[in-house]
Amino acid sequence: MGLTVENAILDGETVGLRCVDGTIAALGPHVAAEPGDQTIEAAGAPLVSPLVNGHTHAAMTLFRGFGGDLPLMRWLQEVVWPVEAKLEPDDVYWGVRLACAEMIRTGTTRFWDMYWHPGATARAVSDAWLRATIGGPLFDADGKTAAMQEKALENLAELGEFGSGIESALAPHAIYTVSEGLLRWTAELAAERDIAVQIHLSETEQEVSDCLDQHSLRPAVYLDRLGMLTERTVLAHGVWLDRAELELIAERGCTVVANPVANMKLAVGGVLPYPAAREAGVAVGLGTDGPGSNDSLDLFSDLKTFALSQRHATGDPTVLPAEEAWRVATGAAAPRLMNGEVQRVDPLAGGQSVAPGGARPGGLHAGAPADFLLLRSSSPELSLGDLHSDLVYAASGSIVDTTVVAGRVLMRGGEVPGVEEIVGRAVERSRRLGIG
Amino acid sequence: MGLTVENAILDGETVGLRCVDGTIAALGPHVAAEPGDQTIEAAGAPLVSPLVNGHTHAAMTLFRGFGGDLPLMRWLQEVVWPVEAKLEPDDVYWGVRLACAEMIRTGTTRFWDMYWHPGATARAVSDAWLRATIGGPLFDADGKTAAMQEKALENLAELGEFGSGIESALAPHAIYTVSEGLLRWTAELAAERDIAVQIHLSETEQEVSDCLDQHSLRPAVYLDRLGMLTERTVLAHGVWLDRAELELIAERGCTVVANPVANMKLAVGGVLPYPAAREAGVAVGLGTDGPGSNDSLDLFSDLKTFALSQRHATGDPTVLPAEEAWRVATGAAAPRLMNGEVQRVDPLAGGQSVAPGGARPGGLHAGAPADFLLLRSSSPELSLGDLHSDLVYAASGSIVDTTVVAGRVLMRGGEVPGVEEIVGRAVERSRRLGIG
Repeated sequence: MGLTVENAILDGETVGLRCVDGTIAALGPHVAAEPGDQTIEAAGAPLVSPLVNGHTHAAMTLFRGFGGDLPLMRWLQEVVWPVEAKLEPDDVYWGVRLACAEMIRTGTTRFWDMYWHPGATARAVSDAWLRATIGGPLFDADGKTAAMQEKALENLAELGEFGSGIESALAPHAIYTVSEGLLRWTAELAAERDIAVQIHLSETEQEVSDCLDQHSLRPAVYLDRLGMLTERTVLAHGVWLDRAELELIAERGCTVVANPVANMKLAVGGVLPYPAAREAGVAVGLGTDGPGSNDSLDLFSDLKTFALSQRHATGDPTVLPAEEAWRVATGAAAPRLMNGEVQRVDPLAGGQSVAPGGARPGGLHAGAPADFLLLRSSSPELSLGDLHSDLVYAASGSIVDTTVVAGRVLMRGGEVPGVEEIVGRAVERSRRLGIG
Repeated sequence: MGLTVENAILDGETVGLRCVDGTIAALGPHVAAEPGDQTIEAAGAPLVSPLVNGHTHAAMTLFRGFGGDLPLMRWLQEVVWPVEAKLEPDDVYWGVRLACAEMIRTGTTRFWDMYWHPGATARAVSDAWLRATIGGPLFDADGKTAAMQEKALENLAELGEFGSGIESALAPHAIYTVSEGLLRWTAELAAERDIAVQIHLSETEQEVSDCLDQHSLRPAVYLDRLGMLTERTVLAHGVWLDRAELELIAERGCTVVANPVANMKLAVGGVLPYPAAREAGVAVGLGTDGPGSNDSLDLFSDLKTFALSQRHATGDPTVLPAEEAWRVATGAAAPRLMNGEVQRVDPLAGGQSVAPGGARPGGLHAGAPADFLLLRSSSPELSLGDLHSDLVYAASGSIVDTTVVAGRVLMRGGEVPGVEEIVGRAVERSRRLGIG
């Protein structure tokens, strides 16, 4: 018994898609339901890959709309830090459940998260039936390196107890908040256990100049000296990376995640230099950053801003074809984000990912995880023109009708079941923290 | 008999709102339905003013998603102009009906439009029960000034036959496509008949340098010499206006409409210098520009991009408080956009508009037009934090549940009645034109 979708439109063709045991068992023009299957009559709805949010702090839905007009340091000091000092796992749990509901509704099925109480995040993601790579943030600016290492090991043990759908990560916060020693330890542990690493890198110019002052190296070069740049590493932001750093990052096989909305909202002064990253062969993904500094989790909005900001920054309206932008948002240009396997992007193949054995990782094909979206076929936004152009420039997440992860239908008809209760619980937790 | 909304939330208070004859008859905590009223139980939904799209070419929904990755001149030469040569009134009608459906769904109830067959646009707006200021574009780069004047008078006569909700405008395309003589004629006719004028101004740097070359004047100064800058005038774009031009524009009482998404999509290199415009006391509104160069008509998306682009351009995350951005998007900072009355914005009153007799123009109060929105009270995006911050940064147009214009319910429950037929007809017209 499986799930079968009939009469969906993929690349202009009418297809059926059959899922068994969480995997796409068959996809093509002649695929039909088998006896006992749950079936979805797609009635001409476009079938597309879901989006992947490459960098967020999902529980920060609890902080959304508070102090967003303050300068960064006042926001952190007056809103975020005092509240985070009181944070309990159940606060994180309901903040993440709210984030998951928003992601399901707007077509994101996998995300990379860095936040306190990562076990609570994992529990929320599991209960929402989504996928995430999760790490508790590592900081030792207070000098308590050993305690942080202990905490990191505890977090990994807790995260390791979750099943498929939850990937563990180490998440050193940034080069300016984590000591050289803790970064080296992170790199060694990640290599030893073959786990993902996520870190904020080169978000502000200050970070670059401080790094040059302290280490006489630019941030990516500094990280590389510590063994931190590998195929397991995901670098968030990358606004101020220069050409040599991008070449190094490509050489090491790291992924860089653009966060254009958060960069513009916090007015850091730039956005990821995507054309140079592409030229260097860097695998690029897209993230929202935390909902406290965005404040949406609708990645369609970030996708449009990503494309607009690249056109704006380069003065070239042809710099980023819509189909390529869509590939960035779905993780197709950065396979490490999408499925947890370590793969290389071959720039000569137009950014096509090259998996061992030649199988395409992720995407929609037999053998891939049964994660997909059906879009509202009656959407005015999709009614005319090229689908990718419409998805990037005309759509919001409200065009998503059906969200499926691992063959499980998480949303049908544009409404996430149970969202009212989730909203109510998140509001309660926020009030408990004194921000609601 | 009227329409009464009960249990809506306005500025944190539970209110009722009663509409009679298209006008808000009563609004406040004790307002209840009278016998025979149509009633809406808002059940705690936020009640807000609708959005005003200050600059668009609505029928260009027909062009959405076609050639959007081409450079501007190739897009115009290969996609737009060949098709526009074949355009019939019914093409425009269905393109605008589609645009109206999208606007109703995303909370925009009034727009300023410049496009061919303006009578067909007016017919579509009337049939959709929206409001618009409409002008057929004036061009005489071909030297056929007299024919264009005749056409302009015909258009005004046709537009004048529509009732309330449709305001006539003269719409000279731009200083680089309209002769000095035709601009002077426009200014004189507008003054004589007291009608609105809309024109693209200072969208590209080329326009500024060409104007300096040809007239030794910057574009706004040049327009002023021709009598074009008055309280009736709405200037679209204004990306390259300098401080002296902004002061002149404020002095003349013109409105400037920011189009940040279109500016970034076409990569003109900048956005309206909003802080300088505010300092000069200019009335500022927000527009999408045509859906061929955006490609959305969801003004919530433009509102977010407006705020982000101002933070990004100035490097200052405190430059534009969310409430002020919301005022720009609802036309509260530019009353000429909102209600067709000529009013001045008093910068000393924090941009509060000052109407004759002290009545607040537009907005939600007894005596104002009964145009308003009810938002989905269960929206995750609105569940926490400051409403204005959530509206600007977290929301998309999908948070609009109910759209009311002149006391008529155009949408309830987030779905526009009849949208499938409208989409179907627009697709047919687009195919007829060879683009669908």
